[in-house]
Amino acid sequence: MTQASPSRNDRFLRALRREPVDRTPVWLMRQAGRYLPEYRATRARAGSFLAMAKNPELACEVTLQPLARFPLDAAILFSDILTVPDAMGLGLYFAEGEGPKFERPIRSEEDVAKLSVPDMETELRYVMDAVRLIRRELHDRVPLIGFSGSPWTLACYMIEGGGSENFSKIKAMALNAPALLHRVLEVNTAAVIAYLSAQRTAGAQALQVFDTWGGVLGPAMYREFSLPYLARIARELRRGEDAERTPLILFGKGNAPYLEELAGTGTDAVGVDWLIELGEAARRIDGRVALQGNLDPATLYGKPAAIREQVRSALDSYAEGNGGSRDGHVFNLGHGLSPDMNPEHVAALVEAVHALSAR
Amino acid sequence: MTQASPSRNDRFLRALRREPVDRTPVWLMRQAGRYLPEYRATRARAGSFLAMAKNPELACEVTLQPLARFPLDAAILFSDILTVPDAMGLGLYFAEGEGPKFERPIRSEEDVAKLSVPDMETELRYVMDAVRLIRRELHDRVPLIGFSGSPWTLACYMIEGGGSENFSKIKAMALNAPALLHRVLEVNTAAVIAYLSAQRTAGAQALQVFDTWGGVLGPAMYREFSLPYLARIARELRRGEDAERTPLILFGKGNAPYLEELAGTGTDAVGVDWLIELGEAARRIDGRVALQGNLDPATLYGKPAAIREQVRSALDSYAEGNGGSRDGHVFNLGHGLSPDMNPEHVAALVEAVHALSAR
Repeated sequence: MTQASPSRNDRFLRALRREPVDRTPVWLMRQAGRYLPEYRATRARAGSFLAMAKNPELACEVTLQPLARFPLDAAILFSDILTVPDAMGLGLYFAEGEGPKFERPIRSEEDVAKLSVPDMETELRYVMDAVRLIRRELHDRVPLIGFSGSPWTLACYMIEGGGSENFSKIKAMALNAPALLHRVLEVNTAAVIAYLSAQRTAGAQALQVFDTWGGVLGPAMYREFSLPYLARIARELRRGEDAERTPLILFGKGNAPYLEELAGTGTDAVGVDWLIELGEAARRIDGRVALQGNLDPATLYGKPAAIREQVRSALDSYAEGNGGSRDGHVFNLGHGLSPDMNPEHVAALVEAVHALSAR
Repeated sequence: MTQASPSRNDRFLRALRREPVDRTPVWLMRQAGRYLPEYRATRARAGSFLAMAKNPELACEVTLQPLARFPLDAAILFSDILTVPDAMGLGLYFAEGEGPKFERPIRSEEDVAKLSVPDMETELRYVMDAVRLIRRELHDRVPLIGFSGSPWTLACYMIEGGGSENFSKIKAMALNAPALLHRVLEVNTAAVIAYLSAQRTAGAQALQVFDTWGGVLGPAMYREFSLPYLARIARELRRGEDAERTPLILFGKGNAPYLEELAGTGTDAVGVDWLIELGEAARRIDGRVALQGNLDPATLYGKPAAIREQVRSALDSYAEGNGGSRDGHVFNLGHGLSPDMNPEHVAALVEAVHALSAR
């Protein structure tokens, strides 16, 4: 398998390159997830989320599930954003009904000193095996997206030890020991670059960085602790790639204030949440990169007719801000799908995107 | 007692009117709260948060506690943002370790039809009694702020039945039955206006509306379901007031995209969270109203020296965006204090604001 083998449906990759397409491509964050009964069945067989994510066959199975139901324009590797710190030895686990946690969070300078970039083909081999298997099973129907958490977002979990209400530990470190936090972010950045490069080598045809928690930072801290590391990832991933390079999407919750800066990092696309009109985002990005987003996921709690109207608004808003053209837009939600969402509503959304964006 | 009786420390009211002051005034959202041991002691005596909020003597006691410790420039009524829907008959309660909940949330058109504006001097008399008592006990040392939740924020709790992760019920109503949601918001708005007016009559010298959840809405929904009701409150509260009117502050988490619109509502001040530089906020508000905010509350996890630097940045950023003047700025956090914060750090913050802003 090579990256050059073209996908039969290449709308997604063309849109990321801002090339003309017949319809706006669509995929959905967490499209392989608990809202699908077949996903819940696989998970029950696997025993746990992590067992499923660490088993390439099961990861492949759930990656493909939403594609069997909906005419999505991309697949995304089924995995977790925290595989990298897990491979660093922090001990990822999921307490029932809670989010991810680490058994050995970073608490001291010694903990920081021990951090190093994991080996991709041993400690994270299960991810690369999953990428290779999914590519094989996809038969180039649609492109496969690989991904990672951002350096800042990984650091949040590594230092807080899990989810957090006010990010007290990492913000205390940012204030009291910023050099120490930068060391964590340096290691994370090197690891994310190696991780995304390895996924690309294994066959990922596009890459997304999830900066899930960048938006909890005020502007000065965002520009010190998140943005420069995103920019380094974008720069390093381009190095040595030819014109056929694997496009990169920088997604971030709460990244609307920084669109111009993100568009200037060298990334191919920026993914935005639902707190900004796509038209405004497109105007500010000004054709420099592609734009991904941005329906409020809660739109899926609406009836199909309401979903369709929201899709229409988003499509039209993008075109209005993009000089009348729908090109350069990848349709997505502004955040992931939730377990209580109705698959029929997801079908209505995907159908509406394709129907209402036909050129 | 009359509103005309001047407070000895009137920096806060002068800043809200954009008049010159000797130092930038400061108060802190949730300044009377669990981070104070004396608050925890009063709460233990009261038995519960609600018992404390509904008892004017205890509400007065905890309102005054932070003023005994710190040279704050305003007191804020100790109460809950959900007193109004509680008085509408929804049955507010607090489950241990969880946020506020309602026993009888709004689930149907019939529930909506039953909603009405509560009587302020009977059903909410305990709040007005607390305002009167606090004013008496304050002896005009500093002004007293009254407050309410915003119509949208009240509706979130009334419809979700408590806190929410993705606001699925109220957003479903916004999409599937917008007219029904507008009816809820109409009643809430009338109730908030009556509630704030009654607090003013009882002696509140400034009023703040907390739009805690406005920021979960995308722009189109914010402009349909939150902003117009905030604007109506600002307009109605001005009606019939003379030049000595009681200033109004519209605070909202995630309101940065709408500063120009908020400044145009007729409010006296806008309160912002920490996700925008004060300088940018001041430039966009352009002297039309005062600005309140906006340190990241997590700054209090930093050491006093770091807190001082963050205070300096915020003060300087405001002045830079306000044509070099520190006037028209009320210092505050971008959100409330948390129970695990150190009162000595709060002292350092208040001291730094006064020291670094002396004219």
